[in-house]
Amino acid sequence: MRTSRLEAFSDGVLAIIITIMVLELKPPAGHSLSDLVHTTGVGLLTYLLSFVYVGIYWNNHHHMFHLVQRVTGGILWANLALLFCLSLFPFTTAWMDESDFAHTPVVIYGVNLLAAAIAYFVVQNVIIRHQGAHSPLRKAVGRDLKGKISPIFYLAGIFSAVLIDPHGKIGVAIALACFVAVAIMWIIPDRRIDRVVHQIEEH
Amino acid sequence: MRTSRLEAFSDGVLAIIITIMVLELKPPAGHSLSDLVHTTGVGLLTYLLSFVYVGIYWNNHHHMFHLVQRVTGGILWANLALLFCLSLFPFTTAWMDESDFAHTPVVIYGVNLLAAAIAYFVVQNVIIRHQGAHSPLRKAVGRDLKGKISPIFYLAGIFSAVLIDPHGKIGVAIALACFVAVAIMWIIPDRRIDRVVHQIEEH
Amino acid sequence: MRTSRLEAFSDGVLAIIITIMVLELKPPAGHSLSDLVHTTGVGLLTYLLSFVYVGIYWNNHHHMFHLVQRVTGGILWANLALLFCLSLFPFTTAWMDESDFAHTPVVIYGVNLLAAAIAYFVVQNVIIRHQGAHSPLRKAVGRDLKGKISPIFYLAGIFSAVLIDPHGKIGVAIALACFVAVAIMWIIPDRRIDRVVHQIEEH
Amino acid sequence: MRTSRLEAFSDGVLAIIITIMVLELKPPAGHSLSDLVHTTGVGLLTYLLSFVYVGIYWNNHHHMFHLVQRVTGGILWANLALLFCLSLFPFTTAWMDESDFAHTPVVIYGVNLLAAAIAYFVVQNVIIRHQGAHSPLRKAVGRDLKGKISPIFYLAGIFSAVLIDPHGKIGVAIALACFVAVAIMWIIPDRRIDRVVHQIEEH
Repeated sequence: MRTSRLEAFSDGVLAIIITIMVLELKPPAGHSLSDLVHTTGVGLLTYLLSFVYVGIYWNNHHHMFHLVQRVTGGILWANLALLFCLSLFPFTTAWMDESDFAHTPVVIYGVNLLAAAIAYFVVQNVIIRHQGAHSPLRKAVGRDLKGKISPIFYLAGIFSAVLIDPHGKIGVAIALACFVAVAIMWIIPDRRIDRVVHQIEEH
Repeated sequence: MRTSRLEAFSDGVLAIIITIMVLELKPPAGHSLSDLVHTTGVGLLTYLLSFVYVGIYWNNHHHMFHLVQRVTGGILWANLALLFCLSLFPFTTAWMDESDFAHTPVVIYGVNLLAAAIAYFVVQNVIIRHQGAHSPLRKAVGRDLKGKISPIFYLAGIFSAVLIDPHGKIGVAIALACFVAVAIMWIIPDRRIDRVVHQIEEH
Repeated sequence: MRTSRLEAFSDGVLAIIITIMVLELKPPAGHSLSDLVHTTGVGLLTYLLSFVYVGIYWNNHHHMFHLVQRVTGGILWANLALLFCLSLFPFTTAWMDESDFAHTPVVIYGVNLLAAAIAYFVVQNVIIRHQGAHSPLRKAVGRDLKGKISPIFYLAGIFSAVLIDPHGKIGVAIALACFVAVAIMWIIPDRRIDRVVHQIEEH
Repeated sequence: MRTSRLEAFSDGVLAIIITIMVLELKPPAGHSLSDLVHTTGVGLLTYLLSFVYVGIYWNNHHHMFHLVQRVTGGILWANLALLFCLSLFPFTTAWMDESDFAHTPVVIYGVNLLAAAIAYFVVQNVIIRHQGAHSPLRKAVGRDLKGKISPIFYLAGIFSAVLIDPHGKIGVAIALACFVAVAIMWIIPDRRIDRVVHQIEEH
């Protein structure tokens, strides 16, 4: 099977996911700036966060499949599992936003991020196993520090939302900070992080 | 006519169908885990089932058109009929989910699965007839055991939902088990099933 | 400018239009077959009609741009005008369906069909004019009998909905018959019609 | 990274944005022509305006990336920022339309246009900087008169909506006239404008 059609299908799904979230943004009932800020202000930031996450996945997905020549049934289904996790973003984003960042919806958003990270990890490993001993993807991934730090941050966010300050907003704020931090880590121009990652890996 | 544009269009439609279903998942009104489980828990599983079905069709569609060089008017319209059947999935899935798996919606979901299977079969046969005596698709399809078992399971599901236990949930449960079984049959790594199919076909 | 990206963009828009209409189909509130028939039965047929129309346009669009080497600014904007007309189908289809085929919505649906036909005609002519004296598209189009009959049928449908039986359903029924007839004319295997068209053109 | 996949993804997102706006057009409750005109008449024009803007961006985007060989991380993220701004069009268009062109929503629509223009400018400059001294894009862009006039018009529109006639409709009308004027400037066959631009640039 050619990689190109799997890429085209994934591109389509990711393009739809990233755009569909804006449908959740309902125009405010009032016509003033404060109406906008109160009803959509936070929603916009939430949408931006999920937009960035889907952008990161699209970017990484692209790089990963650049090194894939043949798509097996296993790779195909692992990829569909990843797309399924990502397709839940509009739903979990909307719930988190509508609930005004209540504890459970924030936890579920974190679980969604975690599930997507695990699905991505599975796709990566299915490809590497299929490519065998001299897998070019294994080389490219290296020690995959970013990929390993991300789930730790997601877990930290989930647990702080569950455990810290269950009647207030501090735990939730820490959780969101974790989710934002991971996104920033992936956006920041690769060079700086790459240098750090290289230094760590060279030890 | 080139196959590539038909594939690109089909990919686009399938990508939209598979993603649009998540729009049916409404965020729960409450903010607790039990709200999520009660209002969306089952919906998520239903969405997953339809997601898997569209994934299977995309996968098979891809393999089928890999062996097609020229697209005739007949193939094109048979393919559009297939896409039409698949585009009804979000609707029948939503009805089945919203009705909490009432008898008729489950039957209609089964009818939708059956219609898609028939449409797929028609596309296959239109291609084979067009390719003539030495059709590579006919060779690849073989006796098409999976393709022949699936509609039997759909029919079994439909009839059990109609006939068995019309005031309770047993018939509906059997129907759903049939629909899930077919999906699993298509996902399971081809090798195992292929071996069985090969053995049966060699007799 | 390459034709391929214009085709890819048009494919994307058409794939979305054709799929988005199913979002208009709301699952019935009740759970019985008669609920389905009464609330969605007609809607399904209306959806099917618009689905077929978008399919026809996609098919013809594909054939037309097969003969186009260079895309000028004029072709690009004429094509966008066509896509705009087609993107109104989900809206006019929904209104016609929700109004239970009231006079005005049926007329507006006909106007939408007519507008799309005119836009398509404009795209065709912009391409032919740009290709100059030996335009391959002009040759392929021939006398374009189908393309000239269609708007006449649309107009006949529009006027019969306006003029015939304004308090009953006869005019509307004639209009719908016209709209369905055009769709069938375009679907029917080209050979039969082509033969007739050829005979007429050879006189 | 290949340009083609970035183009394909951008095409997908733009195709969805341009089509999704029609979902905001709700079929009128009544069934008469005046119902249509009163509830959707203006909405249709608003939709047309945003449709044209997305069309313009797609067109320009296409020309710009025609001159790009390699996509860096910076170009990729600048492009995603542009897509994010454009993906807000359905939202700001819907608010402007639903509010019946109240002051703030018109201002926000202008801000959205301005943000998209700035994002486009950033993409352009990131590409030019990356291409270095002999950047083919820099040559093609020239003095970019259109690109520089547009934000001035947006700003003029925004300020007139804010400052002129804050309790009436004159300021808003001027703002809309500015937004429409920019769209027309970009659609009009390039030759005429190009000639003017050329004359100005040759002085």
